[in-house]
Amino acid sequence: MKIYDVEGFPNPARVRIALAEKGAFENVSFIPVDVMGGEHRTEAFKKINPDAAVPCLELDDGTRISQCNAIIEYIDGEFENGPSLTGENHRERAVISMMNIRAETGLLNAVGNYFHHATPGLGPKLEVYQNKDWGLKQRDVATNTMAYLDEVLSKNAYVAGDKFSMADITVFAGLAFADFAKIEIPANLTNLAAWRKKMNARPSIAA
Amino acid sequence: MKIYDVEGFPNPARVRIALAEKGAFENVSFIPVDVMGGEHRTEAFKKINPDAAVPCLELDDGTRISQCNAIIEYIDGEFENGPSLTGENHRERAVISMMNIRAETGLLNAVGNYFHHATPGLGPKLEVYQNKDWGLKQRDVATNTMAYLDEVLSKNAYVAGDKFSMADITVFAGLAFADFAKIEIPANLTNLAAWRKKMNARPSIAA
Ligand SMILES: N[C@@H](CCC(=O)N[C@@H](CS)C(=O)NCC(=O)O)C(=O)O
Ligand SMILES: N[C@@H](CCC(=O)N[C@@H](CS)C(=O)NCC(=O)O)C(=O)O
Repeated sequence: MKIYDVEGFPNPARVRIALAEKGAFENVSFIPVDVMGGEHRTEAFKKINPDAAVPCLELDDGTRISQCNAIIEYIDGEFENGPSLTGENHRERAVISMMNIRAETGLLNAVGNYFHHATPGLGPKLEVYQNKDWGLKQRDVATNTMAYLDEVLSKNAYVAGDKFSMADITVFAGLAFADFAKIEIPANLTNLAAWRKKMNARPSIAA
Repeated sequence: MKIYDVEGFPNPARVRIALAEKGAFENVSFIPVDVMGGEHRTEAFKKINPDAAVPCLELDDGTRISQCNAIIEYIDGEFENGPSLTGENHRERAVISMMNIRAETGLLNAVGNYFHHATPGLGPKLEVYQNKDWGLKQRDVATNTMAYLDEVLSKNAYVAGDKFSMADITVFAGLAFADFAKIEIPANLTNLAAWRKKMNARPSIAA
């Protein structure tokens, strides 16, 4: 299978960490997309992924799957090694899904919206519509979500409970993006900081 | 199990349709939340659901699950009757997840953002931050997604392929919300209209 992406971008990073957790990195060939040059918005690329974004997974039968959550769902089911990223029964799946959505909407996407709307983002050629006021509001959403996650992590070892899951990957990518976008992670969020240290030590991330 | 919600609102409707599809409506007691009166934003309700929104599922052991996607994940796993809403293998699950996210981000949430930001929405007491320009942009996103879905439905019987799934429920709720918010569904989208007629005839919706 193939993945269209850009190394180092926040959403592609989620899928790369998921692959590493499952010991499946070698099963994928990566096809670089020139996002900075706008390749993802060309008609040719939109035939591959109508979302005009990366990452996008392509299976050997030609099926294409975009959206990190969907891609990680596929990877988790396809590769048996490593931890379950999406949950082992419907109760676990539901809790992981909920926490992952909270992390995505409240942190990763909120940081992205701040970055794309209230900073120069990817530059004037790509940021064709910016709404600064909305971007600044989204930064507040991100900061509030960090505080919420700190509270969650005061009770649980991981974001969705006592086991590592895709929700941890989403939070990790969200915090990395916050650093990049220069959104401060409040120093009093010590549970979040301790969890992040633990995440940094995982082979899928440290490697 | 219990569900905190408001009858007739778009996201609660998704979960109610899912329950009806699984023949599980009778297994749930519904607890009405006074959203119009702001009950969902009280500290008391945020202890139940930190997202300050409806619906929220409560299991008999006290576990609470918010976010329609997570709730439907649980319902689909818990009740064996009716169609699989989330997919029967990881390939199906990934495709359904992708299409569901496209429908949610591009249609249902885009309509909601238009409604809450560029119209009086739920009224001045609840709409404490409105950003009209962003709301209007989101209406364009919704209209573009309708055209995309029409194209999808020119090839497939259902949103995620040849079987009904939770992605259909999300699109159905999105179109109902568009009607309510007075966003026109372009008359030339005949595949979408035909699919909608088929959905209206499903017992889970017609009832
Ligand atoms: N919700 C999508 C988000 C994908 C996304 O936004 N990817 C970014 C890179 S991190 C992108 O392609 N940006 C292109 C742009 O902003 O034009 C997912 O989960 O994959
Ligand atoms: N993404 C959430 C959305 C929930 C949501 O926004 N629900 C609306 C009712 S349809 C709500 O509670 N609105 C309250 C508000 O806007 O303050 C889900 O899937 O459940």
